[in-house]
Amino acid sequence: MSHSTVRFDLDRPRRIGLPEAVFCAGKPRSVLIELFERFGSPDAEPILFTRLEPGFFAELPEDLRKKYNFDPLSRTAWNAKLPARPGKAALVSAGNADASVLHEAARTLEYLGYETAFFEDCGVAGLWRIQSVIDEINACDVVIVAAGLDAALASVMGGLTEKPLFAVPTSVGYGIAEGGMTALRSMLASCAPGVAVFNIDNGYGAACAAARTLRLLTTHSSKEAITQP
Amino acid sequence: MSHSTVRFDLDRPRRIGLPEAVFCAGKPRSVLIELFERFGSPDAEPILFTRLEPGFFAELPEDLRKKYNFDPLSRTAWNAKLPARPGKAALVSAGNADASVLHEAARTLEYLGYETAFFEDCGVAGLWRIQSVIDEINACDVVIVAAGLDAALASVMGGLTEKPLFAVPTSVGYGIAEGGMTALRSMLASCAPGVAVFNIDNGYGAACAAARTLRLLTTHSSKEAITQP
Amino acid sequence: MSHSTVRFDLDRPRRIGLPEAVFCAGKPRSVLIELFERFGSPDAEPILFTRLEPGFFAELPEDLRKKYNFDPLSRTAWNAKLPARPGKAALVSAGNADASVLHEAARTLEYLGYETAFFEDCGVAGLWRIQSVIDEINACDVVIVAAGLDAALASVMGGLTEKPLFAVPTSVGYGIAEGGMTALRSMLASCAPGVAVFNIDNGYGAACAAARTLRLLTTHSSKEAITQP
Amino acid sequence: MSHSTVRFDLDRPRRIGLPEAVFCAGKPRSVLIELFERFGSPDAEPILFTRLEPGFFAELPEDLRKKYNFDPLSRTAWNAKLPARPGKAALVSAGNADASVLHEAARTLEYLGYETAFFEDCGVAGLWRIQSVIDEINACDVVIVAAGLDAALASVMGGLTEKPLFAVPTSVGYGIAEGGMTALRSMLASCAPGVAVFNIDNGYGAACAAARTLRLLTTHSSKEAITQP
Amino acid sequence: MSHSTVRFDLDRPRRIGLPEAVFCAGKPRSVLIELFERFGSPDAEPILFTRLEPGFFAELPEDLRKKYNFDPLSRTAWNAKLPARPGKAALVSAGNADASVLHEAARTLEYLGYETAFFEDCGVAGLWRIQSVIDEINACDVVIVAAGLDAALASVMGGLTEKPLFAVPTSVGYGIAEGGMTALRSMLASCAPGVAVFNIDNGYGAACAAARTLRLLTTHSSKEAITQP
Amino acid sequence: MSHSTVRFDLDRPRRIGLPEAVFCAGKPRSVLIELFERFGSPDAEPILFTRLEPGFFAELPEDLRKKYNFDPLSRTAWNAKLPARPGKAALVSAGNADASVLHEAARTLEYLGYETAFFEDCGVAGLWRIQSVIDEINACDVVIVAAGLDAALASVMGGLTEKPLFAVPTSVGYGIAEGGMTALRSMLASCAPGVAVFNIDNGYGAACAAARTLRLLTTHSSKEAITQP
Amino acid sequence: MSHSTVRFDLDRPRRIGLPEAVFCAGKPRSVLIELFERFGSPDAEPILFTRLEPGFFAELPEDLRKKYNFDPLSRTAWNAKLPARPGKAALVSAGNADASVLHEAARTLEYLGYETAFFEDCGVAGLWRIQSVIDEINACDVVIVAAGLDAALASVMGGLTEKPLFAVPTSVGYGIAEGGMTALRSMLASCAPGVAVFNIDNGYGAACAAARTLRLLTTHSSKEAITQP
Amino acid sequence: MSHSTVRFDLDRPRRIGLPEAVFCAGKPRSVLIELFERFGSPDAEPILFTRLEPGFFAELPEDLRKKYNFDPLSRTAWNAKLPARPGKAALVSAGNADASVLHEAARTLEYLGYETAFFEDCGVAGLWRIQSVIDEINACDVVIVAAGLDAALASVMGGLTEKPLFAVPTSVGYGIAEGGMTALRSMLASCAPGVAVFNIDNGYGAACAAARTLRLLTTHSSKEAITQP
Repeated sequence: MSHSTVRFDLDRPRRIGLPEAVFCAGKPRSVLIELFERFGSPDAEPILFTRLEPGFFAELPEDLRKKYNFDPLSRTAWNAKLPARPGKAALVSAGNADASVLHEAARTLEYLGYETAFFEDCGVAGLWRIQSVIDEINACDVVIVAAGLDAALASVMGGLTEKPLFAVPTSVGYGIAEGGMTALRSMLASCAPGVAVFNIDNGYGAACAAARTLRLLTTHSSKEAITQP
Repeated sequence: MSHSTVRFDLDRPRRIGLPEAVFCAGKPRSVLIELFERFGSPDAEPILFTRLEPGFFAELPEDLRKKYNFDPLSRTAWNAKLPARPGKAALVSAGNADASVLHEAARTLEYLGYETAFFEDCGVAGLWRIQSVIDEINACDVVIVAAGLDAALASVMGGLTEKPLFAVPTSVGYGIAEGGMTALRSMLASCAPGVAVFNIDNGYGAACAAARTLRLLTTHSSKEAITQP
Repeated sequence: MSHSTVRFDLDRPRRIGLPEAVFCAGKPRSVLIELFERFGSPDAEPILFTRLEPGFFAELPEDLRKKYNFDPLSRTAWNAKLPARPGKAALVSAGNADASVLHEAARTLEYLGYETAFFEDCGVAGLWRIQSVIDEINACDVVIVAAGLDAALASVMGGLTEKPLFAVPTSVGYGIAEGGMTALRSMLASCAPGVAVFNIDNGYGAACAAARTLRLLTTHSSKEAITQP
Repeated sequence: MSHSTVRFDLDRPRRIGLPEAVFCAGKPRSVLIELFERFGSPDAEPILFTRLEPGFFAELPEDLRKKYNFDPLSRTAWNAKLPARPGKAALVSAGNADASVLHEAARTLEYLGYETAFFEDCGVAGLWRIQSVIDEINACDVVIVAAGLDAALASVMGGLTEKPLFAVPTSVGYGIAEGGMTALRSMLASCAPGVAVFNIDNGYGAACAAARTLRLLTTHSSKEAITQP
Repeated sequence: MSHSTVRFDLDRPRRIGLPEAVFCAGKPRSVLIELFERFGSPDAEPILFTRLEPGFFAELPEDLRKKYNFDPLSRTAWNAKLPARPGKAALVSAGNADASVLHEAARTLEYLGYETAFFEDCGVAGLWRIQSVIDEINACDVVIVAAGLDAALASVMGGLTEKPLFAVPTSVGYGIAEGGMTALRSMLASCAPGVAVFNIDNGYGAACAAARTLRLLTTHSSKEAITQP
Repeated sequence: MSHSTVRFDLDRPRRIGLPEAVFCAGKPRSVLIELFERFGSPDAEPILFTRLEPGFFAELPEDLRKKYNFDPLSRTAWNAKLPARPGKAALVSAGNADASVLHEAARTLEYLGYETAFFEDCGVAGLWRIQSVIDEINACDVVIVAAGLDAALASVMGGLTEKPLFAVPTSVGYGIAEGGMTALRSMLASCAPGVAVFNIDNGYGAACAAARTLRLLTTHSSKEAITQP
Repeated sequence: MSHSTVRFDLDRPRRIGLPEAVFCAGKPRSVLIELFERFGSPDAEPILFTRLEPGFFAELPEDLRKKYNFDPLSRTAWNAKLPARPGKAALVSAGNADASVLHEAARTLEYLGYETAFFEDCGVAGLWRIQSVIDEINACDVVIVAAGLDAALASVMGGLTEKPLFAVPTSVGYGIAEGGMTALRSMLASCAPGVAVFNIDNGYGAACAAARTLRLLTTHSSKEAITQP
Repeated sequence: MSHSTVRFDLDRPRRIGLPEAVFCAGKPRSVLIELFERFGSPDAEPILFTRLEPGFFAELPEDLRKKYNFDPLSRTAWNAKLPARPGKAALVSAGNADASVLHEAARTLEYLGYETAFFEDCGVAGLWRIQSVIDEINACDVVIVAAGLDAALASVMGGLTEKPLFAVPTSVGYGIAEGGMTALRSMLASCAPGVAVFNIDNGYGAACAAARTLRLLTTHSSKEAITQP
């Protein structure tokens, strides 16, 4: 039985403007250790690890841990960030239970070089929460909203901003919330126009979509004049 | 093969304070005609027909039709209303497509002797809609809200009123809205406390729950003084 | 990365007549400890904690624990109850396995100032159970019923009482019971009119709906005469 | 392309004590006509047709129609019944909308030679209905119950009879009733012991199970003495 | 808060011919211990415990354990069996993984006083298995079949026996087998007539249905002569 | 708005050994007519149309219809068949209601140049059906089995043949059969090893898989000697 | 019963940069006619109608029809387009059956003032299709992809472009495709990063999200210099 | 209670060309030990164990362990392989997380005597991966592809090979990936023709189907000349 090696997608940034990230969940321990060692070398390219359990990270040798910026709430780590780029994302959540997903999105954007601003605990059971910060949110370039349960915040948000809006359902809730399935369905069926949706708890994906969007702030202007019709 | 007759629940008002209504959908044509004739007699007790197709009603003899108050939007008919009782219900909807469900609830309440007030087309994509009428809604004794799609209005409503709140998901929408299933799930998973939920399109059921509640305005006072602490 | 603080909904009682409760499940340990300390101070407003694991509570310092009334069956705790209000709720269950949900509802009502009466283990496989206590149940102002499996008790109850009826499906059962999904569906499809339904195991929600309803006993009379038509 | 012929299971009565029936739904018109002609001959064995649309039957030549006993409510027809056998089945339904399913079961049993008794419209929203006929039901040898919506009647029935109980969910209802899926789940999760369940609207199947059971009244005694331990 | 006591259904044997059994799963430890002590007394009526974890039973005092007949495979225990009654059940399974469910059914029948015979590991991937024992199976009065995965054995069995057939889907399998859901669906959609179905892993329920059926061997004869045609 | 043209995959036979077929369902009438005209020309390559409604075909001009071999049962048409290739497929069904799916598979194989043999109506409720033709089936090179309801035939077949086995669930049935979903699940969870499964009613797909397999009879031998160990 | 009027959201463009559109499906005929008349007046603001059945439009008076630009494929109509804005969208589909959804997206974008380019019939069963046009696609500012069945095109597209990518599942397919549910799930679970997803067949929603994004090309530059780090 | 013994299907190789394998998951520890001892004897026939937990294997006596070839990644063990047969399978995966499923398939084929070649980590987010190895894949006789998430690789593969293609969905992913359910649905709805699908994570089943197919390379030629038309 011959066993072929892993096929790294080093060409990805050229094609899609985003480097590969290491999704740690489910990967064997030995593979993860190898990857942490490889990207811990001085000349390694910047890399992002997601779904990284704090327990696993804590067991790495201290020397290696020191080479990474680890955030236990978002379960992300990086060796270095990519160069800063213009663009700022508003990160809005319905409740504090959505924090790990929201921060996964934020950390991904920071790693990719973008600015972030947090607006947490803005659930619609108290509308004053979202209404008191809406102007600050609208001063950002894109909006990411994370919500579980009924995810009603996504629709309300969709009626309060003209910015690109990326909605992440979270697995917060019990019973009919069903691991985020109701939040996902609710966001997809939103009565507000143009709410883009991602898989349950996929803060990383929403951040990547935001990054694709924020590139328009620079890549477009470099190619063709904005003086089009 | 001996065939037993229908078992009318004439005892129901005594037990639960609500008379039986005739749910027309699925009943054979001959049975419906028999019922319309029976309750068209001068001494018949008041009765409500629900899910009554306008096409069917139009084919009844004109003499018989004249004995009924028929509303095609809600697909309801009655021969007479029950005596008026104290209590007023706010009927709130997210969009005009929810109208038939909302009006089924309203007509049921009217038939049962209660007052109603409509607040339609208050979907959260434009929050000013619900916020501009919230004081009028809160002047009522109970609130019924009907919404399809993401049903976000139920949660927003739940954070804006102290009144008993009865939420009816509607089958408005397509794709993941799945005949009202997403609205139903969203209402059940509401982030606002105390939102009572009913089957999809079940305006009649919500009205009956409202009626059970409105009875507290009078039946309680007859048993014990409201001057309790 | 700037991190905004939690947004407490101190305005909630004014808007909806119910204070916020702390849903403990999923909240980080540090947040819960902070909250227990905050509400353990002498001048703190009354607060209710729900879904509070006994194991967590047991690990709090004894000084702090003494400041709370903790009930392990319902997994609830409060520092103080709200002032008593008129109104009494019947709490009915199908079996003893429904007890934790039923008691969550009861404790919530007690905390909110209402009286409760228990009627447990009244499943319909032995109809004499519910029939022998129905008069006592009907002497209350509202009824909460908790049932898992087929949840047939909700429909039977709906045919035996004229009181507002709040039905909570429980996650009791296996196989097709599917964590309460069958009980939820069964209650929503009830053949009895006006059965209001809540999320699986959501005793807290049913209690809040009951509280919204029981307020009618007093708030209505203070606004307008009951002498309406 | 060679096309093999239909493989009739003429051996079935010997193996399972029940002859094949013709399930008409979905069969091509030409095949059905051929079958009606074949079994219309004087020496044909008794046969049962199920799911036979009245419109189709009405279009058959009058000569042929005269050879069949057709019942439009149950959508069944037979050329002749099998010899009478000892055994009587109670046929119980929750509402009149369950009639076509209940009568499919009844007609199948009659065709197979058994006696039937009807107890329709016994839904649990009015418990007096089932309680007033329970003694008559218990005088039968087996019970078939058909119910849609929440199917609560199956559980109540299960607590009131010692007889073999065969429960058929019906597709009566809308929304979460989902074509009988909720009734099916509810019956399977029944809190009463020993409720046997069948596919939605499968009155024929329940009747066959009842027939398998009623055979015990005679086949056992012919093989071995009942004086076993 | 007043807490009503448990409502034992002592009247059940009179009504349905079957005593209550104690379903242990989910019951609090203290309740179970109380029940084991109560039914361990010399004059206690015979009782069956189901879903009883071996670990729990092992922790009971040895004195108490000695008073029970415990079977770890089926997770059942009884203090005494009911008097023997005429009737023998065939217990058929598709594979050895179905054993705990099959034995729950068998133990329930033994407790109720019936004879049992086992035919395990008869899955249809090797048809010779079932065909080599079919005559022995058909010498019994009723058949219980337990199968997971595709549950094809239920349909094959349905074509090979004239006896009442009770089919129990088991939670054996992975992926699309989905905890027995595919087996349940497959049994309900069986192409063989008269296959009665129960909840996933509900060996107890199938046994109760079998017991209801086996009673016909004796209760009928006491009412009317079996000498009918 | 510029509208690009259709992108025909003329390269497909070179890549995958199978030409494109025209799936007619859902295609606009004008597109279908254009395609029938194009492939009706004398020098057109052989083409297969699937899911072609008889009503649509009947409305084509007689001249055009004459150029096609149309089969209403399978709803397929071709202008010409591909050259004959070695290989014979057994086409097995559970019942006559599966015929249109089974014949779609057969017609596809015939069009692709393979021989077919039919074994219809072999459902497992009468095992003698399949057992009486199993030797003939095993004389073929591959087996396609189509079944609805519980699809038990697939598993039984899997235990009776060593040939590649392609199983197509059909949408035959009602209630829990749910448009073939139960048959699909049952086949995927088969207790027999190596049963390959396709989408519901996808006779065309199973035939393509069979064709991929039958090519091994010739393509392999041309590359390397079969005299390997 | 007092009936409040419709609440038009005239404030929407100011808040979210997008005017309301009229979703025609489900709206009563009389309402639609009123709207067509209202927006047919010379001084009406530009409006878009979606899900407009050709049959309905054809029945409008010719005078009124002349005032609208109607496209039957996309089922959209407008009275006038909004002023042109910089930005161009690539519209990519897997097959021609996705055309109505893809064109709904395209027409919405045209109405909103954006340029579009079509790349239809690029399904991955022939990868050369998408690979031969990828450079043209990447010359646009955003990409919308519509696909049914397995929706594999969305993931492949996600690996070939750096542009914002909006994926719309379509209801194309049968059986397990389940009205687009499989395509929706597949897109949400995409292995490519940053694929934003919408409800099944929601071309309008994807276009609105694209419009939110394309606004970044101009609104950002007017607020702050793009010369940021 | 008499307990029949296990029914080994020793006849299976004769009927279907494949010996039984021992699926360890769910089997009691004692049964597994017995089987390992039985097949550890010198004259035992070759046997394959699947779903064998490394922890269990490690606890066997060293003497016994030495008699088996155990692979922890695939969780398989054999005492000996079957004789080599002509035929080579390509084993393709989307990512390294699919490895255990892919290797279960590979080990099964090796045990059955076939050659294997690995092509791992070929997910479509970087199409160059699969395109760079496609010629090597096409040099094999059959292809097995394992993929989770959206499983888009199966469809892309289906458009790049003429070989029999067996697709195994894996339980890789979270949220809507739902334990492999989305991958399963996606593969079944593949836009490429002739993709054969298996249960989630069922590498063993795909290998058995591949083995059934590879037998055509030899069994056919022994029966009839390949010189057919």
